Amino acid sequence: MVSPQERAAMARARELGASVLGTTSPNPPVGAVVLDADGAVVGEGATSPPGGPHAEVHALARAGERARGGTAVVTLEPCAHTGRTGPCADALLAAGVARVLVAVPEPTGLAGGGAERLRAAGVDVEVGVEREAAEEGALAAWLTGARVGRPFVVWKAGATLDGRVAAADGTSRWITGPVARAAVHRLRAGCDAVLVGSGTVLADDPQLTVRDADGRDAPRQPLRVVHDRRGRVPAGARVLDGAAPTLVSRADGPAGLLAELFDRDVRRVLLEGGPTLAAAFLREGLVDEVLVHLAPKLLGAGPSLVGDLGISTIGAALSLELREVTPLGGDVQIRLRPTGHTGVGPRADGRD
Amino acid sequence: MVSPQERAAMARARELGASVLGTTSPNPPVGAVVLDADGAVVGEGATSPPGGPHAEVHALARAGERARGGTAVVTLEPCAHTGRTGPCADALLAAGVARVLVAVPEPTGLAGGGAERLRAAGVDVEVGVEREAAEEGALAAWLTGARVGRPFVVWKAGATLDGRVAAADGTSRWITGPVARAAVHRLRAGCDAVLVGSGTVLADDPQLTVRDADGRDAPRQPLRVVHDRRGRVPAGARVLDGAAPTLVSRADGPAGLLAELFDRDVRRVLLEGGPTLAAAFLREGLVDEVLVHLAPKLLGAGPSLVGDLGISTIGAALSLELREVTPLGGDVQIRLRPTGHTGVGPRADGRD
Ligand SMILES: NC(=O)c1ccc[n+]([C@@H]2O[C@H](COP(=O)([O-])OP(=O)(O)OC[C@H]3O[C@@H](n4cnc5c(N)ncnc54)[C@H](OP(=O)(O)O)[C@@H]3O)[C@@H](O)[C@H]2O)c1
Ligand SMILES: NC(=O)c1ccc[n+]([C@@H]2O[C@H](COP(=O)([O-])OP(=O)(O)OC[C@H]3O[C@@H](n4cnc5c(N)ncnc54)[C@H](OP(=O)(O)O)[C@@H]3O)[C@@H](O)[C@H]2O)c1
Repeated sequence: MVSPQERAAMARARELGASVLGTTSPNPPVGAVVLDADGAVVGEGATSPPGGPHAEVHALARAGERARGGTAVVTLEPCAHTGRTGPCADALLAAGVARVLVAVPEPTGLAGGGAERLRAAGVDVEVGVEREAAEEGALAAWLTGARVGRPFVVWKAGATLDGRVAAADGTSRWITGPVARAAVHRLRAGCDAVLVGSGTVLADDPQLTVRDADGRDAPRQPLRVVHDRRGRVPAGARVLDGAAPTLVSRADGPAGLLAELFDRDVRRVLLEGGPTLAAAFLREGLVDEVLVHLAPKLLGAGPSLVGDLGISTIGAALSLELREVTPLGGDVQIRLRPTGHTGVGPRADGRD
Repeated sequence: MVSPQERAAMARARELGASVLGTTSPNPPVGAVVLDADGAVVGEGATSPPGGPHAEVHALARAGERARGGTAVVTLEPCAHTGRTGPCADALLAAGVARVLVAVPEPTGLAGGGAERLRAAGVDVEVGVEREAAEEGALAAWLTGARVGRPFVVWKAGATLDGRVAAADGTSRWITGPVARAAVHRLRAGCDAVLVGSGTVLADDPQLTVRDADGRDAPRQPLRVVHDRRGRVPAGARVLDGAAPTLVSRADGPAGLLAELFDRDVRRVLLEGGPTLAAAFLREGLVDEVLVHLAPKLLGAGPSLVGDLGISTIGAALSLELREVTPLGGDVQIRLRPTGHTGVGPRADGRD
């Protein structure tokens, strides 16, 4: 039985995890809440950047003695191994919590066993509490990495009602309004890397940094990545301006590129186009989430959202599942997931 | 001062008007509610098909003696002229109502004067109550007819996320799911005519009738119209099957076609494509409302939502204003209005 207080704590733990999305890779963005014996919140925490304490440790530190006999609520099973930080299961035991609620069981062999160790020490442990919400939230990208060994790919595009991402003359600034553009900067901040094709660099010369409303660079910047097998990106391109780290990749295609990024600890990639690169990712089934920023405009000409997918008849259309439609100033954000999406199958992978 | 009961009655009157949309042209689809002296609803009515009683007459008949000293709430100013039916203003006077609330003043010279006549007889009349809601609702098409002398055009298209209305091989059945398709039949039922281009007839051979969930034809069918200057529609086309009246028009272009339809008492047209005909209407500023049924699919090839608009750069994009986003099964309906839309300027035109 999970109490209403515990459910509220789990929802809060998911929020805490989401608040550090994009800052923890290769570690998972976990959220934790500690309740005292009466069910009152006495500590909250989220994963620090790599090398720093995990979520449970933060929450326990805030709770102090009030954790004794209480309940820890966490989005991911506490680790039982010793990485750069000590095992969280031991920290929970030392704090004397009587009960631990876990949303998602640890999918990697390496760090697994936290629930077992806690149970062996007499702690009441429930695993799988509101699991789906946690799996689809901040942990989605890290879980994809742990299970299939590649980064999670969010493809974002801004398009007109008739599916154009630029006008006939190549101009695309601005299809969407300021609210949608600000949302793109927040999206970038939640990713480890931002990826575009060489065609987009040549057409738009984007900077690809995270900037605030006043145009100032954020302190933490995701890796900028350009897929450019033929060395077409000019030396003067803004993406090479030093404002953030940049990788110009000569990888053969999407799979090779993602492997390269995974090795650099990237777990969540924002694919920002163009249509040719997006089509290559879609054809290989390497898109996990789609965000279309739809502008209430018509162009009647210009490049379309996505290049050739090798689909010639309506029955073969690539189907997605609509997840959410959100107003974005005068524009609309449509969030979708490909159906028959991967993200299953075991694969052990480290977290510290 | 308008009381909460009167506001509720006006909202109900709008609903009543909407319930007869598509059945009253060339008359306006009006709704009326009669309240007794205590503010209780004692009668409701909506415009009958041409030749039948107007909304007020229906509502007064239901109210009977209870109308005396009460209030009539109507979406459009009661007529003061004698057409096929007697003037509604006189009917309201005969029933002895003490107060009349009107949303939209009568825009045509011919039928105007109802409010004045009522006031002259000592009735308390308020005009302009929640006017905008009424003007944007069921009356929109009729008002466009009265003001600019042409039918109101609703352009509806079903498209994929990447703005394709058919696949590369021309197949387009079905882009959207059953809920969206049922909505199209309801849309048709609310229009006086359904219009497609010759290209759509040749590609899809649509029947363009209003059918229920079991595929049975509705008793009332809008006029089917094909724009076909070159006589390309084959004799065996389903649109010529006799299940509903059909007009194959050789009009020069959108304006000529709309004039032809207006002369046939059409006040609301559903333009169902294809992209070439839609572009011709958009270029001439002859689209009043846009409904896109967006399917969560990608095709990567195939005809786009709209043909060439003569727009080559992003700053010249045709801007629309987003009005409403509604889920439609697994699809989404996006309702928009062109900005800088017409619908102003005087022009007197008959209603009976
Ligand atoms: N509105 C938006 O959201 C948005 C976003 C981005 C871009 N755009 C617009 O999109 C246009 C540029 O798009 P684009 O399609 O020309 O460029 P692009 O997708 O940015 O660049 C083409 C990319 O595809 C790669 N590629 C080509 N063939 C491939 C294949 N068979 N397999 C794998 N990868 C392949 C190329 O790699 P190599 O260079 O190594 O060949 C290159 O990285 C511009 O008009 C821009 O304004 C709009
Ligand atoms: N998904 C959807 O909602 C949807 C709806 C409809 C159609 N479609 C698809 O759209 C495709 C057919 O579209 P389409 O564009 O080829 O055909 P279309 O728009 O149905 O037909 C072309 C129309 O444009 C007229 N026209 C051509 N040039 C014009 C001009 N300069 N000024 C005014 N009118 C002009 C033609 O008249 P004349 O014949 O007199 O030259 C004809 O009526 C098919 O693949 C069909 O499946 C999809």
